[in-house]
Amino acid sequence: MNTEGLTHHTSSRFNEDLERIRASVLEMGGLVERQLHDALGGVANGDSYNALAVAQQELRINQMERSIDEDCSRVLATRSPAATDLRLLIAVLKTITDLERIGDESEKIATIATHLAGGERPRSRYRELRHIGALVTTMLREALDAFARLDADLAFKVARRDRAVDEEYEAIHRQCITFMMEDPRTIRRALDAMWMVRAIERIGDHAKNICEYVIYTVHGKDVRHTRLEDAERELRMAAAENTSTAAAVIGLSPDGNKLPG
Amino acid sequence: MNTEGLTHHTSSRFNEDLERIRASVLEMGGLVERQLHDALGGVANGDSYNALAVAQQELRINQMERSIDEDCSRVLATRSPAATDLRLLIAVLKTITDLERIGDESEKIATIATHLAGGERPRSRYRELRHIGALVTTMLREALDAFARLDADLAFKVARRDRAVDEEYEAIHRQCITFMMEDPRTIRRALDAMWMVRAIERIGDHAKNICEYVIYTVHGKDVRHTRLEDAERELRMAAAENTSTAAAVIGLSPDGNKLPG
Repeated sequence: MNTEGLTHHTSSRFNEDLERIRASVLEMGGLVERQLHDALGGVANGDSYNALAVAQQELRINQMERSIDEDCSRVLATRSPAATDLRLLIAVLKTITDLERIGDESEKIATIATHLAGGERPRSRYRELRHIGALVTTMLREALDAFARLDADLAFKVARRDRAVDEEYEAIHRQCITFMMEDPRTIRRALDAMWMVRAIERIGDHAKNICEYVIYTVHGKDVRHTRLEDAERELRMAAAENTSTAAAVIGLSPDGNKLPG
Repeated sequence: MNTEGLTHHTSSRFNEDLERIRASVLEMGGLVERQLHDALGGVANGDSYNALAVAQQELRINQMERSIDEDCSRVLATRSPAATDLRLLIAVLKTITDLERIGDESEKIATIATHLAGGERPRSRYRELRHIGALVTTMLREALDAFARLDADLAFKVARRDRAVDEEYEAIHRQCITFMMEDPRTIRRALDAMWMVRAIERIGDHAKNICEYVIYTVHGKDVRHTRLEDAERELRMAAAENTSTAAAVIGLSPDGNKLPG
């Protein structure tokens, strides 16, 4: 029996498995992006039309979460993946949970947009909601790009941006409290805005989580609960050390080398 | 080379691995339970003493999440688990994320309890917060029991209880809005209570998630996004069918048999 041939065969089928799973995650990500876009569209246009569409997309997203989950389990059981492949599968298992939660938050946004559409439209506050909405929309798109290209540098960049979202969230939150205290007739609308901005901020957290899984897949390093700047510096130092060791071995100056992407 | 011996040896070491991981999850669960208990204690006693303790526990919980995650990856890479063992490891990977989030929510509760401790104490509202707090405390404890014993029946029972928590949450939420509209001076305190009850309600969701992973481990069925009553009936029917088939084979009445636990 030619074991080498079998290994090669298995490995090529395994690559197909991994590619299929990655493609499915990106498809699910695309659906979630669309859902967020539609939900935020409801805020911008002051219409309630999108809420039903968003709820329907939710069903499809839940189905995809389930089927990708099953696919990962099957590949884990049959292919005994190791190293980066194993980390990718674990990252996928976690990523789809975050994508599904982004779907849930988008549904909340769409529902609240329907409430807001029924009331008076204070131009200024919606501009801020649209602004933070645009920030997390970009975060989500780039987190999915980082996943698609397994680009840890991009993942770090996107994850760091979560701080700006948090600051924006705090500012809108405080502003809503001020509105409520100044004019109690705005209480309901201000609460709606608070819940919506909260949902948007949570989506930023989930996008950041996805970035952390990309970094874990690429570098094998769990950067959750650490300051991103520290984690990134550590990884760069480790990479520089490897580079200078390798350079010493082959007789090159380390300065000419760039960090691996 | 005695392959049988090796397999046996590997399998016994594998059992040790699984036992160690289960014990770690339960230890982490115990820490999270303690943290929730301390956070809710701050509400009951109106003190701010616990907030620091809760924040310190958070560090330990994050460390545990990371080390259990690594342990699962190592076992997945080296033992090629299948069937229930594989499902257990996948369930653990997801469960620890939910436990860590419960830790985050408990920290929020402790922080808000500190705010509330600084203000006037309206007896009635805190009774309701304590009531829903007690509901999710029990849910969490029993979800961890269900995990410890891989008891899917208990997991179904606990997961169904999330509905009562949601109803309680809605009621307190509405009541807070009423208070704010009636007396705008209560706005800040009512908002604190709303954020706290929201955090408590989220803990119920996470406990429910843990129950769903237990059901997945035991029955191999993903019951997320399905009505629990439907999922449970389906599983009972499938089990009854298996029982009656088995009974026909060995010539027994199926009525004497109970559903597997």
